[in-house]
Amino acid sequence: MAAPPCPLEFITFAEQLADRARLSVLEHFRDDLAVDEKSDLTPVTAADRETESALRGLIQDTYPEHGILGEEYPALNPDAELLWVLDPIDGTKSFITGSPMFGTLIALAEGGRPLLGIIDMPVLDERWVGARGFPTRFHERRGTRSVATRPCADLSDAYLRTMTPDAFDGEARHVGFQNLLRGTRMTLYGGDCYSFGQVASGGIDIVVENGLATYDFAALVPVVEGAGGLMVDCDGREITLDSAGDVLALGDRQLLDPALRLLNN
Amino acid sequence: MAAPPCPLEFITFAEQLADRARLSVLEHFRDDLAVDEKSDLTPVTAADRETESALRGLIQDTYPEHGILGEEYPALNPDAELLWVLDPIDGTKSFITGSPMFGTLIALAEGGRPLLGIIDMPVLDERWVGARGFPTRFHERRGTRSVATRPCADLSDAYLRTMTPDAFDGEARHVGFQNLLRGTRMTLYGGDCYSFGQVASGGIDIVVENGLATYDFAALVPVVEGAGGLMVDCDGREITLDSAGDVLALGDRQLLDPALRLLNN
Repeated sequence: MAAPPCPLEFITFAEQLADRARLSVLEHFRDDLAVDEKSDLTPVTAADRETESALRGLIQDTYPEHGILGEEYPALNPDAELLWVLDPIDGTKSFITGSPMFGTLIALAEGGRPLLGIIDMPVLDERWVGARGFPTRFHERRGTRSVATRPCADLSDAYLRTMTPDAFDGEARHVGFQNLLRGTRMTLYGGDCYSFGQVASGGIDIVVENGLATYDFAALVPVVEGAGGLMVDCDGREITLDSAGDVLALGDRQLLDPALRLLNN
Repeated sequence: MAAPPCPLEFITFAEQLADRARLSVLEHFRDDLAVDEKSDLTPVTAADRETESALRGLIQDTYPEHGILGEEYPALNPDAELLWVLDPIDGTKSFITGSPMFGTLIALAEGGRPLLGIIDMPVLDERWVGARGFPTRFHERRGTRSVATRPCADLSDAYLRTMTPDAFDGEARHVGFQNLLRGTRMTLYGGDCYSFGQVASGGIDIVVENGLATYDFAALVPVVEGAGGLMVDCDGREITLDSAGDVLALGDRQLLDPALRLLNN
């Protein structure tokens, strides 16, 4: 029997969290960009803390029995069956250099498995919402619609995106990673959480990332899978909150075996 | 004696061209993104051609004596003293994968030297306008203002951006390029024309790119230099329409010597 769909009230509430996050994130974006001679992390840290603090308050007011896991503060009730996982600003390099390609990640996990995920792009006014039992929805300025991944049966046709060519540096998998990049049609670098939204919308076929934290990947899973894709760790296993953070997102499940084969030699 | 400032009427007209470009570019963005199984270049080619054709028409109607150089059609009157240089979509990879990080580049050159440049980001609704004798202006949704590059006297403090780690591949300069990346504080990949806007706005300190075409770099020079930065070729020479397309943009001129030293061993 399939697991029951995500309760609608959680989806509505998660979108309210994303709306609230935009307020404090946008307030700090491009703040003092050219003022500080030193490359200063103060604006992103302030935005991270204020946002996470505001979201924690809303969650505790509405669902006091739920747990909360975030980047900036200690975990709250981490053994709760329902656990919110928050990353106010995913894409720090973008944020601090004045690029709009950073996102807010909000996930709800049930029993350690991602149940609901939002990738929100505050400056772009774009948002992907994925939830178990529902097709992934994509909001852009022109409107909101369901999205689906793109069919791509052959690795040699695939567009791949990854943060940096230095992923898996110093690890056994680095050579396999480079072979995977060479085995695809095109590689794009950078992107952070946006790359996973691009998989859900059918623009990118594969994303591979190394060393993500739980709050970096939890929200991505429902977005990718609700659009018909697959997200696993780099050994091909289901992703849970305990996963190690080396992840693979695939628009077409037929890419799983050839991608794992190259990645792991 | 300093060269005279760019006539205001050219700045106004160039902004009209950028406004017009947005119409056809946005019409094709995310068109059929997930429909085509093959990674199809049709949408970007159609957007490129329609846009360039529309801009050429406007230029010929308004300034029949000016020349036009563009990506999609043969050059028109290329020996004219005043030459418009057009790239409707810079950042093809972004465009075809549904990312908003592509731009329209519009330049006016006088006697082979860039006089005026626009970096327009149609989806973001952001625009940098640089013109000789004026400070670079930046438009974002929150308003329009002058921007300035960031002071950064030491390479070890610099944020560097470049399209790909494979730049200068197979050339003698590839090792110098890698040394330059290692000599800075942080490297970001990707970005296309947006990276040069980030230099103008003080978010990035160095951009280095390999093998750009004339229509890729002409518009960038007035944007970077009008904000207080410097843009040269990788031998440190002034950029003209005849430059080879290996370019270096610096927010702080003090970075020029150390950057060239590493890049050229």
